Amino acid sequence: MKIGRLNHVGVAVPDIEAAKKTYAALYGATQATETKDFPHLGVRVAFVHLDNSEIELIEPCGEASPIHKFLERNPKGGQHHICFEVPDIIAARDAMRERGATVLGTGEPYIGAHCVPVIFVHPKDSHGQLIELMQEPAR
Amino acid sequence: MKIGRLNHVGVAVPDIEAAKKTYAALYGATQATETKDFPHLGVRVAFVHLDNSEIELIEPCGEASPIHKFLERNPKGGQHHICFEVPDIIAARDAMRERGATVLGTGEPYIGAHCVPVIFVHPKDSHGQLIELMQEPAR
Repeated sequence: MKIGRLNHVGVAVPDIEAAKKTYAALYGATQATETKDFPHLGVRVAFVHLDNSEIELIEPCGEASPIHKFLERNPKGGQHHICFEVPDIIAARDAMRERGATVLGTGEPYIGAHCVPVIFVHPKDSHGQLIELMQEPAR
Repeated sequence: MKIGRLNHVGVAVPDIEAAKKTYAALYGATQATETKDFPHLGVRVAFVHLDNSEIELIEPCGEASPIHKFLERNPKGGQHHICFEVPDIIAARDAMRERGATVLGTGEPYIGAHCVPVIFVHPKDSHGQLIELMQEPAR
């Protein structure tokens, strides 16, 4: 199992539309997707496009959102995770477990904001860094 | 002023060699640079290569390191900054100021770990996200 591209950097924000405006007005990054709600995941998400990767802006959605706790600790927002592409998400999940890492939740890959299956690996396994692994999207 | 590529994601760690081993053993990211000391910047740095970008591993070096405070708050380590390339670092610095953002330090670009001039923009200007702007390296 070997990771591929850095698909995106996940950044939690209290207000996704305000953050999109900042990336456009301050940094000239004007290419962003519409914001989409994922109520079953507890998040609203938009992607700011860069030449070689993307910033995933994440805002909590609903009471049970996994982002609430993060924003309590970081009220202005902040860096949340990095996401690597893998050719086979099941093989990647199995490799994580074989190598002693903790896959979050049930460990079953679920469909993320890119419409491909993803897993998250516990930050304790990567020196405090939360890491998402994503099945390579079709290009 | 418009940003270009996501040059790297900066990740602070207490032990850079241990982190390199983790990225290689757990994620198969075996291509990394030698670790270099930058005593005048208070950091030791190594880059883990990905297909389209890099992870910058950062460890404090010396008593006055800017990373100490971050690791006090995040003892295991964690995501520290993201770095965008810009075609002209002076124009980018001036644009940041014109647009009301705070450039850290003296505001004069200085030579970073990639041997090109960089600046940092205060997290308060980008919803809690520390952002580095780097003069595009020659390719």
